[in-house]
Amino acid sequence: MDTGFTIDQSFIAQENERALPDLERDYSMLSAQLERRGIAIEAITKNVQKFAVAVPSWGVGTGGTRFARFAGEGEPRNVFDKLVDCAMIHRLTRATPRVALHIPWDKPEDPRVLRQFADSLHIGFDAMNSNTFQDQPGQALSYKFGSLTHADRSVRKLAINHNIECIKIGNELGSKSLSVWIGDGGNFPGQIDFRTSLERYLESAREIYASLPDDWQLFIEYKLYEPAFYSTVINDWGTAYYVAEQLGSKASCLVDLGHHAPNVNIEMIVARLLQFGRLGGFHFNDSKYGDDDLDAGSIKPFQLFLIFHELVQESLRSTRQSPPPTYMIDQSHNVTDPIESLINTVEELQRAYAQALLVNREELSFYQERNDAIMALKTLKRAFTTDVSPILGMARQRNDGAIDPLHVFRLSQYRKWKIAERPVATTTTTGIV
Amino acid sequence: MDTGFTIDQSFIAQENERALPDLERDYSMLSAQLERRGIAIEAITKNVQKFAVAVPSWGVGTGGTRFARFAGEGEPRNVFDKLVDCAMIHRLTRATPRVALHIPWDKPEDPRVLRQFADSLHIGFDAMNSNTFQDQPGQALSYKFGSLTHADRSVRKLAINHNIECIKIGNELGSKSLSVWIGDGGNFPGQIDFRTSLERYLESAREIYASLPDDWQLFIEYKLYEPAFYSTVINDWGTAYYVAEQLGSKASCLVDLGHHAPNVNIEMIVARLLQFGRLGGFHFNDSKYGDDDLDAGSIKPFQLFLIFHELVQESLRSTRQSPPPTYMIDQSHNVTDPIESLINTVEELQRAYAQALLVNREELSFYQERNDAIMALKTLKRAFTTDVSPILGMARQRNDGAIDPLHVFRLSQYRKWKIAERPVATTTTTGIV
Amino acid sequence: MDTGFTIDQSFIAQENERALPDLERDYSMLSAQLERRGIAIEAITKNVQKFAVAVPSWGVGTGGTRFARFAGEGEPRNVFDKLVDCAMIHRLTRATPRVALHIPWDKPEDPRVLRQFADSLHIGFDAMNSNTFQDQPGQALSYKFGSLTHADRSVRKLAINHNIECIKIGNELGSKSLSVWIGDGGNFPGQIDFRTSLERYLESAREIYASLPDDWQLFIEYKLYEPAFYSTVINDWGTAYYVAEQLGSKASCLVDLGHHAPNVNIEMIVARLLQFGRLGGFHFNDSKYGDDDLDAGSIKPFQLFLIFHELVQESLRSTRQSPPPTYMIDQSHNVTDPIESLINTVEELQRAYAQALLVNREELSFYQERNDAIMALKTLKRAFTTDVSPILGMARQRNDGAIDPLHVFRLSQYRKWKIAERPVATTTTTGIV
Amino acid sequence: MDTGFTIDQSFIAQENERALPDLERDYSMLSAQLERRGIAIEAITKNVQKFAVAVPSWGVGTGGTRFARFAGEGEPRNVFDKLVDCAMIHRLTRATPRVALHIPWDKPEDPRVLRQFADSLHIGFDAMNSNTFQDQPGQALSYKFGSLTHADRSVRKLAINHNIECIKIGNELGSKSLSVWIGDGGNFPGQIDFRTSLERYLESAREIYASLPDDWQLFIEYKLYEPAFYSTVINDWGTAYYVAEQLGSKASCLVDLGHHAPNVNIEMIVARLLQFGRLGGFHFNDSKYGDDDLDAGSIKPFQLFLIFHELVQESLRSTRQSPPPTYMIDQSHNVTDPIESLINTVEELQRAYAQALLVNREELSFYQERNDAIMALKTLKRAFTTDVSPILGMARQRNDGAIDPLHVFRLSQYRKWKIAERPVATTTTTGIV
Repeated sequence: MDTGFTIDQSFIAQENERALPDLERDYSMLSAQLERRGIAIEAITKNVQKFAVAVPSWGVGTGGTRFARFAGEGEPRNVFDKLVDCAMIHRLTRATPRVALHIPWDKPEDPRVLRQFADSLHIGFDAMNSNTFQDQPGQALSYKFGSLTHADRSVRKLAINHNIECIKIGNELGSKSLSVWIGDGGNFPGQIDFRTSLERYLESAREIYASLPDDWQLFIEYKLYEPAFYSTVINDWGTAYYVAEQLGSKASCLVDLGHHAPNVNIEMIVARLLQFGRLGGFHFNDSKYGDDDLDAGSIKPFQLFLIFHELVQESLRSTRQSPPPTYMIDQSHNVTDPIESLINTVEELQRAYAQALLVNREELSFYQERNDAIMALKTLKRAFTTDVSPILGMARQRNDGAIDPLHVFRLSQYRKWKIAERPVATTTTTGIV
Repeated sequence: MDTGFTIDQSFIAQENERALPDLERDYSMLSAQLERRGIAIEAITKNVQKFAVAVPSWGVGTGGTRFARFAGEGEPRNVFDKLVDCAMIHRLTRATPRVALHIPWDKPEDPRVLRQFADSLHIGFDAMNSNTFQDQPGQALSYKFGSLTHADRSVRKLAINHNIECIKIGNELGSKSLSVWIGDGGNFPGQIDFRTSLERYLESAREIYASLPDDWQLFIEYKLYEPAFYSTVINDWGTAYYVAEQLGSKASCLVDLGHHAPNVNIEMIVARLLQFGRLGGFHFNDSKYGDDDLDAGSIKPFQLFLIFHELVQESLRSTRQSPPPTYMIDQSHNVTDPIESLINTVEELQRAYAQALLVNREELSFYQERNDAIMALKTLKRAFTTDVSPILGMARQRNDGAIDPLHVFRLSQYRKWKIAERPVATTTTTGIV
Repeated sequence: MDTGFTIDQSFIAQENERALPDLERDYSMLSAQLERRGIAIEAITKNVQKFAVAVPSWGVGTGGTRFARFAGEGEPRNVFDKLVDCAMIHRLTRATPRVALHIPWDKPEDPRVLRQFADSLHIGFDAMNSNTFQDQPGQALSYKFGSLTHADRSVRKLAINHNIECIKIGNELGSKSLSVWIGDGGNFPGQIDFRTSLERYLESAREIYASLPDDWQLFIEYKLYEPAFYSTVINDWGTAYYVAEQLGSKASCLVDLGHHAPNVNIEMIVARLLQFGRLGGFHFNDSKYGDDDLDAGSIKPFQLFLIFHELVQESLRSTRQSPPPTYMIDQSHNVTDPIESLINTVEELQRAYAQALLVNREELSFYQERNDAIMALKTLKRAFTTDVSPILGMARQRNDGAIDPLHVFRLSQYRKWKIAERPVATTTTTGIV
Repeated sequence: MDTGFTIDQSFIAQENERALPDLERDYSMLSAQLERRGIAIEAITKNVQKFAVAVPSWGVGTGGTRFARFAGEGEPRNVFDKLVDCAMIHRLTRATPRVALHIPWDKPEDPRVLRQFADSLHIGFDAMNSNTFQDQPGQALSYKFGSLTHADRSVRKLAINHNIECIKIGNELGSKSLSVWIGDGGNFPGQIDFRTSLERYLESAREIYASLPDDWQLFIEYKLYEPAFYSTVINDWGTAYYVAEQLGSKASCLVDLGHHAPNVNIEMIVARLLQFGRLGGFHFNDSKYGDDDLDAGSIKPFQLFLIFHELVQESLRSTRQSPPPTYMIDQSHNVTDPIESLINTVEELQRAYAQALLVNREELSFYQERNDAIMALKTLKRAFTTDVSPILGMARQRNDGAIDPLHVFRLSQYRKWKIAERPVATTTTTGIV
């Protein structure tokens, strides 16, 4: 399998060389500042170097809305092209070692071949994502009215089997988890019986759970609405938590930042699920209105920081009952080059993570115990307003990534090469309004 | 104890006599219509006759906002006046046999005297409501920074003891439940540690729970926000459900219709809590923006119907695991005569209940199993658009209440009498912006 | 042009004959009730008979979300098929005499042929709808980054010309208005300069306006978000109003019920635009979360009534400064038979309209002047809770429509015939997540 | 008039001396960084030195909710105490030279005496704020059912006269503007006729406007809801804009950040009103749910930055048609020392302002014209993530304020002194639920 054009490590190194003097100056300045605050910059940088988040295979293609999809040029044509793009993001950022696949979009003819190809690109596989919210050509039964909760047992069985198949494929690829998101629900009052549909969900989920290897996790993803516009079966964290409790210790909840009602305090949901030992997975993105799937950190960066504050806090506890949550990106890149958006997203996640690492937790606790709200807030804000860019650049440089990955990406003309290598995708419209 | 002016049963009867001929005509017309749809009106009417909802003692006084309270004339001056007003509402509607008290606002010097007085008015006591969201004059410690979750154990202890005292008073009054709503939370990121505060809540709640008589219930009331404006300890149904699970079988959740994020499907939450056997209490009201505490059915009557649809559906199951939820009204009457608002509210609740009783559940189930969304919706809408007013009037008439209770109330000049009997309350403003 | 199977007038008449006795009984009962309230039922019925709303050509096909479209069987294959379906809805309801076309989806090769075909079906054409939110195959320039506000003048010109072409086609078809909705905006802070983009919009809109025939109207449709997820150029009524003011008297605003922020009081926006003489068009639908495009009246029927209350109130003023707004349906029928949804929608609109006609406006005004909030509310609720179904049935029957149009539609097996006549559409998925 | 304890300039100077070495180091580091980005730090610092925002007299007392107000110790007892506190905030921050008064809360017996006192404290007066949302003791008529839009002309007249009195008092104090915010509206459908109430508003506002001195401005403040919970007369920017257009060039809109529906893009409203020449005033605060009145920048700091980005952008235009908007703080400090919250707020406003000054507008424009969304976003984020704390500290130091004002405030024991000087306010509860 040919990867076509890639960005050479030497090219990255050469650009890093140019950028390093300024970076070192900024880094040492920041180091001095942090030292005054009692923070050793090296510990932070080392943690940032270890940060990893999975990229979604579907994220390297251009996304769209129900109104239109405006394809970009040089888009990946198949799962191999997608892996090439993902590997390139990892080479530049050194923070995306794994790819989350989506079945059937990325269904490999032979998983072993796919795994070998990934190995050759030095990337692995993260959570498998099943799809029972669309009908595939030639599919015997339709998911129009639901999948795991469909009134018809044979449709449920089809959806269950598809999930079991995803586990099998994933197992061959080295994945360790399955994310289950269904669109099941109703558009109108009366369409769905709330109780029956949840009972059916549990019955179906139990069958999937039974097929789960011992070292796998099952992530239950909830979402307030869309595609169902009145009621959704797995609609909030409370329901996902209930389901996970019913299923067993390998089941947990998946938080997608765009799946909540307006105004909801998401960092608190994160804290709750961590406290209850049921936070399994994370879908990073950002949004202003609904499930907008924008680039993480582009709309509400302070919220992202507060979420990482909870995640870091939990990671410091000695009494953890559950594995750390799996970080994934789930975005729809409609107006940007998807690779550029993903590079940028990784940087924003690392930024929020680094800022969260800067929080003086002893002081914070001190103020909390004294009801000193203003100083508690300032403690968080002090960390948030610190410009951690030098830490991010240094972490990447030390990991052999690019100090300024977006710059290097553009400079490399990667996209131009891919436009030549990959036949132009026709601009298609959904024809749906 | 003198009740002052009351509306005589004979006065009600006399007005009913006037209204009865038209009512009977309408009732028989509706009866014929329903018969064609296979519904026996008498069964519906009998059910409506049995409908009961508790009125809150605080609801018979004029409410206000943080900006101002515009007192009405003739307002109750104390718990005895409040009971008189509540009893009058029951006499007219025959659907509010119990009053929910609020301690310390309604704290009786001698509970036995209060109970005797209530007996004489033919009303009883519903859930007790504790108050740890305000400081009382002379209170040793302040709830400014929390109560059951306060950082200081001695404040928590104060709040715990207050709740235990509420149980004791309630026990002497014949109450069987305690509603616990706290305002605890933070206004700013960092102010509160999410995990610690929930742990403290559980610890405190366990102590209260331990003091609960065997035949009592503990209702955990959740609320998204206000008075805390960033994070609230018991903020959603998922958290309340978790708490109830931790406490034991006498603990359950209390749904207040105004305590949710925008767009949230509340009828689904109701269905979930019923399914999980953890729906203990209900605070009826209505809202457009936040916890507006408007009169039930005034803003979203279809939502109210859909909620009753779930409640009725559950009541028909043979496999119920938990007692039916306790119905209470919790409203703030800022621009209306509180008694009139409560009378009207009772009628709107009965309307939604009667409409829900009309739902052809066999047909609904038939359509649901066939994914016939349009007919399922129509089945609900057919019930909702039925004008059940004649049923409501007839149920009241048969119960010796007023066919048109608001009309009789006005005609009686009850308020005018109370203005004379009760010294005029000074218009006070909160002085808070 | 062959229409294929249609529902015979005689078939409708025959079913009406069956239903008439019960309808007449219900109608006379309601008549008696209303008479007691001082309302002459015949005046209401006559008004309902005159009610008309345009159906959208795109509404007779199955809609979808960005996740999937689950096609129905027997869907229209082209604009002629669509007109046949629309005409059928009109025949059954007698309330949808005009169709709103969407260009280029419904672009006729020869408008005169299309008009003749419509004439033969006894339907006409309502507002034209331009489309600059999608790229069409072979389109020289892309709307990916905007249309009427695009940074590149040549793209703006393309979009302007498309709108002018829509006017020309519409003129030949007998349409009298153009609805302009654009998706222009940005997904990220910084992407769009708010001021520049509105200036460009005004410049483009002026060119379109200049091409408008004297007896035409230009409807400016606003929308909070989607497809742009951070900022939308024409995002709220205030902006649309400003634009209309700048353009001239033939320009006005178009309200789509699903295009507002959560909790917003839409009936008030309707009242404002009526007061300012700038309400030109209406897109009816319903929603719970975003622009869900559900069937009107299915989620918030009381809101729909309150909106009609404003519309009726304005229609009674003698001092109207502007033509009555054009009523259109704009929905996405994802899980129902589109024809059934539209039939049902028409009925729900008529229901809300009839209820609004029942409001005793003199009494309402009396209570408003006396700050009698509870009685003002009851005055509205009395109208809303009246079961006006007999009026709707009688209005249809007198107009030669079907008393129960959905029942007749199903009985006719229209869809089964169309499945035979129209080749099965393949289930397609959007491939967009 | 004795001011009691104040923080000496020498005390501030002494603390600055301690902090200066570190500040200078950080400042020069930042200077070097910015230089590389082509930004001269001195120009930014000079602009920040000129930044001014008015503090509200009511902001130095503890706020509350409808549930409770938990008074702080040492609170101001009257307008003189309030001015002392405000002057102290200005001395520390050198950014709050004016105080916004609220009549009647701060109504002076003799305005000249108050002005002299303010002069002695080196502070002046900003916008006057009228209050017709509360009844004052002894008030002849009540605002319970409205003020400027009340059904009764004599109540409207009372409210008009109150506003005119505010102008008169303000004139004597040296104020140049009047902010008009009314709570008028309805809690229930039907209570208020939307059209009539706006007509009455216009009539009343015209009378107030007629009393406005030539060099004054009238700010129309809109708010989505609260205290009215169904409909509010001046509910959104579109309505406020319409009113301002009707009144004349001295009238403009006032944006309060907490007065919008969920998800609304406020920075866009700011841009619109600036574009239309109708942005007169600004109420800074922050919120997560409703009009939470939290400290600016505490919840959504990126939004605050984006708003300042618009304000800065407008200030750079040569073609401005209207005076720059008046900046005011409007917050409710419920759980913090109000002075500390205000000090912190000023810093957060300056931070957002300084960040906005850093935006490379030429580059931004370049990317916007090329639809380069990712680089446009990055251009904004680069400014936002810059740690401008050294600029803020240096600007204060050069203005003779405190480098770390909160630290100096605590060190000074100002509050302890005031607790001694000012009799303890009793903790009061509102008694409203």
